[in-house]
Amino acid sequence: MTRQTADLTAGASSAESPKADTEVEDLEDMALSDDYAIDPEYVDMVIDAADRNDGPRLKELMEALHPADVADLMGFLTAEYREELLPHISPDDLAEILSELDTNLREEILENVPAASLAKALEELDSDDAADLVDDLDKGKRAEVLAAMDDVDRAAIESSLAYEDETAGRLMQREVLAAPQFWTVGDALDHIRADPDALPELFFDLYVVDPAYKPVGGLAISQLLRAPREVTLWSLMEPVTEIAVDADQEEVAYIFDKYHLISAPVVDPGGRLVGQITVDDIVGVIQEEAQEDILALAGVSDAGRDATVPGIVRARLPWLALNLVTATIAVTSIAMFQGEISKVVALAVLMPIVASLGGNAGNQTLAVAVRALAGKELTESNAVRTILREMWVGITHGVVLAVLLGGATFAVFHNPKLAAVVGLALMVNIFIAGVAGILAPLALEKMGRDPAVSSSIFVTFLTDFSGFLAVLILASLILR
Amino acid sequence: MTRQTADLTAGASSAESPKADTEVEDLEDMALSDDYAIDPEYVDMVIDAADRNDGPRLKELMEALHPADVADLMGFLTAEYREELLPHISPDDLAEILSELDTNLREEILENVPAASLAKALEELDSDDAADLVDDLDKGKRAEVLAAMDDVDRAAIESSLAYEDETAGRLMQREVLAAPQFWTVGDALDHIRADPDALPELFFDLYVVDPAYKPVGGLAISQLLRAPREVTLWSLMEPVTEIAVDADQEEVAYIFDKYHLISAPVVDPGGRLVGQITVDDIVGVIQEEAQEDILALAGVSDAGRDATVPGIVRARLPWLALNLVTATIAVTSIAMFQGEISKVVALAVLMPIVASLGGNAGNQTLAVAVRALAGKELTESNAVRTILREMWVGITHGVVLAVLLGGATFAVFHNPKLAAVVGLALMVNIFIAGVAGILAPLALEKMGRDPAVSSSIFVTFLTDFSGFLAVLILASLILR
Repeated sequence: MTRQTADLTAGASSAESPKADTEVEDLEDMALSDDYAIDPEYVDMVIDAADRNDGPRLKELMEALHPADVADLMGFLTAEYREELLPHISPDDLAEILSELDTNLREEILENVPAASLAKALEELDSDDAADLVDDLDKGKRAEVLAAMDDVDRAAIESSLAYEDETAGRLMQREVLAAPQFWTVGDALDHIRADPDALPELFFDLYVVDPAYKPVGGLAISQLLRAPREVTLWSLMEPVTEIAVDADQEEVAYIFDKYHLISAPVVDPGGRLVGQITVDDIVGVIQEEAQEDILALAGVSDAGRDATVPGIVRARLPWLALNLVTATIAVTSIAMFQGEISKVVALAVLMPIVASLGGNAGNQTLAVAVRALAGKELTESNAVRTILREMWVGITHGVVLAVLLGGATFAVFHNPKLAAVVGLALMVNIFIAGVAGILAPLALEKMGRDPAVSSSIFVTFLTDFSGFLAVLILASLILR
Repeated sequence: MTRQTADLTAGASSAESPKADTEVEDLEDMALSDDYAIDPEYVDMVIDAADRNDGPRLKELMEALHPADVADLMGFLTAEYREELLPHISPDDLAEILSELDTNLREEILENVPAASLAKALEELDSDDAADLVDDLDKGKRAEVLAAMDDVDRAAIESSLAYEDETAGRLMQREVLAAPQFWTVGDALDHIRADPDALPELFFDLYVVDPAYKPVGGLAISQLLRAPREVTLWSLMEPVTEIAVDADQEEVAYIFDKYHLISAPVVDPGGRLVGQITVDDIVGVIQEEAQEDILALAGVSDAGRDATVPGIVRARLPWLALNLVTATIAVTSIAMFQGEISKVVALAVLMPIVASLGGNAGNQTLAVAVRALAGKELTESNAVRTILREMWVGITHGVVLAVLLGGATFAVFHNPKLAAVVGLALMVNIFIAGVAGILAPLALEKMGRDPAVSSSIFVTFLTDFSGFLAVLILASLILR
């Protein structure tokens, strides 16, 4: 892939002239590698400049970067270097950089920035992004920062924080472009030009509201631009998808994806327009939710790129300890049959294969089910059909793999009874794996729990347990 | 969550009046459950109507749904019902429904729609969506459909298909709003109003181009609306992030997420503007890529909600068969030590715990690494640091879990040497798991391969193998 991008600082301070000087241009070209990630050599340049305490150079290196790339750079540095960079970041960029940072880095940096600078930086942001930052402050600093802000901005942040985390209320910005239905296109255009400061920085749709400020329709800005001035909004508008202010962010992301929305009006329980959510906030939510599923299926929570060893251990050890318990329970089935094993040691060789293949088959079904549940492709409408289908898949896989493993067992141990034991046990275990892989996430979803969390450890436990037990019970029946 | 949404048909045919009659309104209210997924009862109503061959009712039920919801409904029906629905779908909605369908359903339905209707439907779509549909047609039908289309639309589709699948060229639409830099805001607004048909249906940014049609900047439409008419575009525009036409869709999604883009200009290798990508297409790509990672980590490809049993078996059996081979190789280590096991049968009980915990620890590290690589948070800049950190995490986990398992072993078997064997083996295996969990995906990424694919099976194999071997070698050294 060749990168044609001359300049990646779109969205940076609009005060800048587009005619950047050549020196800065060169740094910008060096900042990103071919895959748009920050170039390791650029990171080294920053570290060099910091080692030399070269303030002007650091400032220059930071200014050549888009705020999102500065945030990215921070993640590749150690805490000492980050602290050294802070004073060289322009106050205009600080807010945007902060809102791009990973949570743990953000908390670290928020601590190091004085309350007054923070208050100024927050006033630059949309209310949703500002509220997110304030939410990360400890109580004392939060009061200090809010006190230093102007009244309007503080009120906006406080009302945003009144909504629960991960709901539409927290994602939305309160600034919207709304107009009564009797207005004409010309009225709307004049209104926009007359008072641009009351509007959100970017907007994509105009919402048409009734006298009670309830949305009755909407209109893309591009449609507004195309229409003759004298046409009424009423005749142009189309139905809009409203979002309840208490809707979970996962639902909001689902709606944006399903209906290809660019922005959507948010309404309070009375149906009145209270804000808007734009798709750029949703892209982050979708990434987040998908990553949560990936990590939950592996039984791990992400401590972040900059986490310390104790932080990572805290995030992972509980699951491993739980797995130690379940694995110990699973092997009690083996302990009960030690006599069987001492007679036929080959069982000790073959049992783990049966258990492992069951675990794999179960986790395949589980991953597909978790994905289908997240996309609402698996509901009551097709649950029974899907379960039955997984059973047939389990039977098919079981038969094929049983023939393979049974054949291999016979070839190695020349014992047809042992081959039968292993083949049958594998068939049983693969079937159980498929059923557990679909039922566990469905049951968790039905209980209102996250189907990705803890179903993997349950399926692995069950397939271990039933794998060992199937081999040993069949062995005690057939091999005597 | 309460749903306040009165009407979810935003984006449907713009010819509709916003005053929908009450009957249709009622159906719309029934169509979706609280979580915005299609209501199982609504699916039953459709099945009932189809069973009664009630054409008018089917038509009514379809018309109350947004095309995206019709596509969703299709996924919950069997092939026979889908075929029965087809004639009752309005030709206007058909194209949009088709572009919302899962690939395998889409292929099925494309086969059942006559070429002439298809050609008409395709003319309603943006060139990127139309090209996607045409790409799914078999060769004969493709020629037929293209021949039935008008020349301009056919040319647009053919040039879109000339780009490789999953590249920016395929995602982009060729229609863009571009203007020379010497134009004023007024010129741009007049241009939009003068020839609205030459423009994309929706647009969010105006791209400023030089005489060679190379982008030199951009401007959000909302900024254009706010600015005085006499201001030149040159003085208003900001730098834009250009996307190379051959860029991989994963890179494109990364850029949109990182810089919070709503749309971006696509340029050919000569730097000339050839189209634009809008964020609504990217939301789908992000979902797709994240799901691919979830499934790849579980060693499964998704056959789709409507897949048949043979289709699912084809998607999953190869990985299970591969796992059968790797598991068999792993247990050869046990086979070499059968003498050891027949002396101490407890080893057969304890080995699987060591192997299983190693597998879990390895897959935790793997999931975090795959996620970090996808987000470009793990690069050359911090690879060494991350590997070292995983080693420390492995040592910490190993020590804690070894003490727990060793203690439990001593409590049950009253054999300090056996406890030492199992504890040490677990420590070694957890360490190996952590190192493999970070090195395997890094190595695959370095080789230009997808780090999610096949690293999971490798890590599981390695931890099984080293788990068994560690227990047995230590046993043969310590237990004599």
